[in-house]
Amino acid sequence: MIRFNNDYSRGAHPAILQALADTNAVSYNGYGIDPWCEKAANDIKKYLDCPDAAVHFLIGGTQANFTAIAACLRAYQSVISAQTGHIHAHETGAVEHGGHKILTLPAENGKITAAQVAAEGEAYRSSPIQEHITQPKMVYISFPTEYGTVYTLKELTDLRAACDKYGMYLYIDGARLGYGLAAAGGDVTIRDIARLADIFYIGGTKCGALFGEAMVITNPALKPDFRSFIKQNGAMLAKGWLLGLQFSVLFRDGLYFDITRRAVEQAMELKAAFEKKGVPFFMDSPTNQQFVILTRGQVKALEEKYVFEPDHDVDGEHTCVRFCTSWATLPEEIAALTADIAAL
Amino acid sequence: MIRFNNDYSRGAHPAILQALADTNAVSYNGYGIDPWCEKAANDIKKYLDCPDAAVHFLIGGTQANFTAIAACLRAYQSVISAQTGHIHAHETGAVEHGGHKILTLPAENGKITAAQVAAEGEAYRSSPIQEHITQPKMVYISFPTEYGTVYTLKELTDLRAACDKYGMYLYIDGARLGYGLAAAGGDVTIRDIARLADIFYIGGTKCGALFGEAMVITNPALKPDFRSFIKQNGAMLAKGWLLGLQFSVLFRDGLYFDITRRAVEQAMELKAAFEKKGVPFFMDSPTNQQFVILTRGQVKALEEKYVFEPDHDVDGEHTCVRFCTSWATLPEEIAALTADIAAL
Amino acid sequence: MIRFNNDYSRGAHPAILQALADTNAVSYNGYGIDPWCEKAANDIKKYLDCPDAAVHFLIGGTQANFTAIAACLRAYQSVISAQTGHIHAHETGAVEHGGHKILTLPAENGKITAAQVAAEGEAYRSSPIQEHITQPKMVYISFPTEYGTVYTLKELTDLRAACDKYGMYLYIDGARLGYGLAAAGGDVTIRDIARLADIFYIGGTKCGALFGEAMVITNPALKPDFRSFIKQNGAMLAKGWLLGLQFSVLFRDGLYFDITRRAVEQAMELKAAFEKKGVPFFMDSPTNQQFVILTRGQVKALEEKYVFEPDHDVDGEHTCVRFCTSWATLPEEIAALTADIAAL
Amino acid sequence: MIRFNNDYSRGAHPAILQALADTNAVSYNGYGIDPWCEKAANDIKKYLDCPDAAVHFLIGGTQANFTAIAACLRAYQSVISAQTGHIHAHETGAVEHGGHKILTLPAENGKITAAQVAAEGEAYRSSPIQEHITQPKMVYISFPTEYGTVYTLKELTDLRAACDKYGMYLYIDGARLGYGLAAAGGDVTIRDIARLADIFYIGGTKCGALFGEAMVITNPALKPDFRSFIKQNGAMLAKGWLLGLQFSVLFRDGLYFDITRRAVEQAMELKAAFEKKGVPFFMDSPTNQQFVILTRGQVKALEEKYVFEPDHDVDGEHTCVRFCTSWATLPEEIAALTADIAAL
Repeated sequence: MIRFNNDYSRGAHPAILQALADTNAVSYNGYGIDPWCEKAANDIKKYLDCPDAAVHFLIGGTQANFTAIAACLRAYQSVISAQTGHIHAHETGAVEHGGHKILTLPAENGKITAAQVAAEGEAYRSSPIQEHITQPKMVYISFPTEYGTVYTLKELTDLRAACDKYGMYLYIDGARLGYGLAAAGGDVTIRDIARLADIFYIGGTKCGALFGEAMVITNPALKPDFRSFIKQNGAMLAKGWLLGLQFSVLFRDGLYFDITRRAVEQAMELKAAFEKKGVPFFMDSPTNQQFVILTRGQVKALEEKYVFEPDHDVDGEHTCVRFCTSWATLPEEIAALTADIAAL
Repeated sequence: MIRFNNDYSRGAHPAILQALADTNAVSYNGYGIDPWCEKAANDIKKYLDCPDAAVHFLIGGTQANFTAIAACLRAYQSVISAQTGHIHAHETGAVEHGGHKILTLPAENGKITAAQVAAEGEAYRSSPIQEHITQPKMVYISFPTEYGTVYTLKELTDLRAACDKYGMYLYIDGARLGYGLAAAGGDVTIRDIARLADIFYIGGTKCGALFGEAMVITNPALKPDFRSFIKQNGAMLAKGWLLGLQFSVLFRDGLYFDITRRAVEQAMELKAAFEKKGVPFFMDSPTNQQFVILTRGQVKALEEKYVFEPDHDVDGEHTCVRFCTSWATLPEEIAALTADIAAL
Repeated sequence: MIRFNNDYSRGAHPAILQALADTNAVSYNGYGIDPWCEKAANDIKKYLDCPDAAVHFLIGGTQANFTAIAACLRAYQSVISAQTGHIHAHETGAVEHGGHKILTLPAENGKITAAQVAAEGEAYRSSPIQEHITQPKMVYISFPTEYGTVYTLKELTDLRAACDKYGMYLYIDGARLGYGLAAAGGDVTIRDIARLADIFYIGGTKCGALFGEAMVITNPALKPDFRSFIKQNGAMLAKGWLLGLQFSVLFRDGLYFDITRRAVEQAMELKAAFEKKGVPFFMDSPTNQQFVILTRGQVKALEEKYVFEPDHDVDGEHTCVRFCTSWATLPEEIAALTADIAAL
Repeated sequence: MIRFNNDYSRGAHPAILQALADTNAVSYNGYGIDPWCEKAANDIKKYLDCPDAAVHFLIGGTQANFTAIAACLRAYQSVISAQTGHIHAHETGAVEHGGHKILTLPAENGKITAAQVAAEGEAYRSSPIQEHITQPKMVYISFPTEYGTVYTLKELTDLRAACDKYGMYLYIDGARLGYGLAAAGGDVTIRDIARLADIFYIGGTKCGALFGEAMVITNPALKPDFRSFIKQNGAMLAKGWLLGLQFSVLFRDGLYFDITRRAVEQAMELKAAFEKKGVPFFMDSPTNQQFVILTRGQVKALEEKYVFEPDHDVDGEHTCVRFCTSWATLPEEIAALTADIAAL
């Protein structure tokens, strides 16, 4: 079986395994105070053109999200998210477990707009009963979104402006950041992300690492004592250099960008194959996740050789499913699948 | 510099790195539902002689502790711990962040007694104002303790009886379980641990793995929906098979027990060297952590070649420091240090 | 100015003030362990025909809600509510602050349906990724709703059946229970409430008391240690007998039912006056809250003599406002307002 | 039976009941935005000589404490308290339920010292592993303490200096503030309290009100959005004017100070009677709580006519018990008890 069900089904880029092997006998200081974390942070800051950013390495996405939110918000403050946002839909209420309400907005193509955010900000600002409602203080977006779509630079800039107007933080969940930056037709660079967000993370788990996410804080108000939040939230790895080492490899000579760009190119091959076959798309995604609407028969045919993920039933005859490429997808896997799509 | 400062300063046992390399190109299902996690769980259950136990793989110790506590306690229930317990002393208030009070007891040799636990249970049971105080519902102990000492089988059995009498759970933090089971003169087996605790974890991070802790639940009442607690607390690794794989290697042919036993033997060599030199011990530890009281001059002399951890100042002239061996300590490192101790 | 803006703008029924005066010099035991709380609990249980119910007296609605939810749910469990539900819309995220997600459902006439609840239950039960989402374990409804509407006995019975099918608790927020039971055309009795809910509260603050809510627990599984939850959540009044005393007065000879029925009758007079004038209603409410859609001119005219509450803007020319009667509304106040409505 | 078991066993000062009766038919705006709350706040600020203070009215002590702590601390910050402090000993873990660790210090006479606080501050500041421990950010003291003792002005001034040095807030739990300010031989005024604390509350429940505590915030950094914390924590009374009204009465012509001073004078009569009889004291209290060590026989004798509170067993023959006077204690009650003490 060939897996296209997600982008975290294989180990790590071989260069990472090699680095682990090379350093296995070396001893390091623990908890992220080590030369590899320092080097990786510096390398990342260069890519961001953001020398004053704080960079911390956490283990996984859910914990990265609730740790960031804990560090940014006071108890009566809430976070705005698309209804389809990962923090709302797939994290077992971790944000609420941490004490914060999520204000959900209907999403279009997985995205929310500056106008929606401004409306929330205005509603709070003009409320005569502010103390009876939560204060929206953070905007959570994912880039790319849970449906593979991406915000344009204009959309992000507008969100930033709305956040500025209403005193909110912009937090970007970059679990798949590499794929988003490589979006076909996209116009957002990692420097834009760093310039527009107050805090965001660069996903490693889904982009070539065994595990790990690099949290970047550019807003000076959010930097103090962030390590205390990491530790309290169980996100501080004892052997922290394993995270720095991995990101150090990923940001060596732009490897992170190369491997995610290739995965997007592969996804575009799949997309073209589906388009050619007349298979409709649930959303028009320019990144490594492709949501297509298949007939039961097509599902059955493809299930014989491929693993892919059901998203939702469309009607009695059709199902929306996700095909995902990754940094690890092999050319021959794409060749096989495109051929089989053509043969549907 | 040779590091004796802790037992998590080097990567992983070579067999683990080899297994990672061997499986790197294979694709797996995520979130701990994979053949490696299943195999590791089964292997562990055989060692425990506990076929009905639930085994889950988490990433690190602090998150293992607060996740277990969240899963066991209701909001008004508290956990009993030694004042020196890791959850009280070194986890940034993570347990309280999760909503629970820790009832601390003065420890002797890092340990608490059944009598102390019973006194807490009795105090609650006989309190005329129960609703004004928390209900002690869990006893937290570490095996070995934070000072390297171990409970005897009699002590554990008595703690179990006190827990039974007062309706408490016994939770054992086994971050260094391997070293504790190999304690010089110890009489506790891993089957005893499984038989006496309601829930405990087998530490991987400090015992040969890159990272990872195996949570074992033997009390049926604590098993349902434990995965929901794991996910909500950010402790569910996307590439969960990495955890199962590591524990699978560690529990192949008893590797886990062999490498921790060797580390304890090395620690006993250090202990003997210190004893021979007349260096006093802060506590009499039969495991891989040795707390000795050095003069400033001795500290200065040893600091030239070795990294070790200051614990506390004893007086103006003496400091208590920790030397730690691990699964990764080399014979030549022990030889060098014992020689230098002799030469003090 | 005559206040119709809410049902908590005046002190207490005179019989309550009299009882406070009569007992002011008597000394009582604290924290709700006193003869008045015992008597009130017994009186209430008789009205409920539910001798085994547990009855506790809390101070206010928000704290009653989050205390009940804390006592019923585990950390990964969530509560289903209408989007217009008080816990979601007007409690500053108190439920999330307590760690629980609210699953919101679109409401019709302020109400949710058994079918909606069943859909949530089914979605969880059939989810292949249960551990990534919260478990819906409680249904929160208000009776009457925030818009004055009431569930029929059939609707409540269906909700109960859905809860039974999916293992959920039914919790009824009865902040205005008296008004709901007196609903014009309503068919629900307080015995139905007690029979169908697992836990609910009988509102005092809005129904004749200075303050206070009587929490009733009929589900045996939810009774143990409820007082611990009350105390931990700051809802245990030191002079607890003040609560028991008030409810004792309210449930003496059915006073609670009489004064709320009268308020509903007054509201029906207002309703008739608005209807006669052709003023449209936002919702068709059979209880003490009437939401009408006024022109700006009508608002301006009525604002000269009356205080009422803006709910939302309908369009540039119309506003939805709330008129509220209460146990304290005077006949002459109704007479004045109905005359002024007629004169609009 | 005559009750000396606590200071919250009777209703309210008659002037308060009168005020409630006088205003019962008047209608007010809700949630503490009303003329009585405004007036009471202004009156209190005059007594404090602190025109810029923020004054809020909450319902009870436990909720006042956890609300203040929630508003002052970030998640990784802890509060320092005496082991005998009310937040640690008698609030069912409410502070931890709110997410914060309490760092307990051994108390002498119920009090902690500036030196102890400084030691905690220094320990954190100099810690090489700050992110593994909580940051002590608030000092909680009660005035008078749970044992009736009071801090001297010098002690409070020193605590303030320690807080300043280590960047901590000083929070004073004034549940019995009136009695503390009237302490025999005491040198602390309410203006000192306001000048030295960042935030404190003036207790009403135990000092003449039916219920209610006035939270005073003098530190400007702690003022914003405090009402949101009040509402979220269930401490916002719907009929908020009931609180303002009561404090308005209590601070009219110094009534608060008069009635608590009289209670302290009565307690001094009891104290003298016990001293004369040679009954030993557990602590030397200059306020309305007297802890004496009685023989079993003496307990038995006094129990026939009086209710008083057991504190702890001293030995097989002696028990420490509390006698409490209050604003409501009658001269004849004191006369009776002193006579019976003399007759022991």
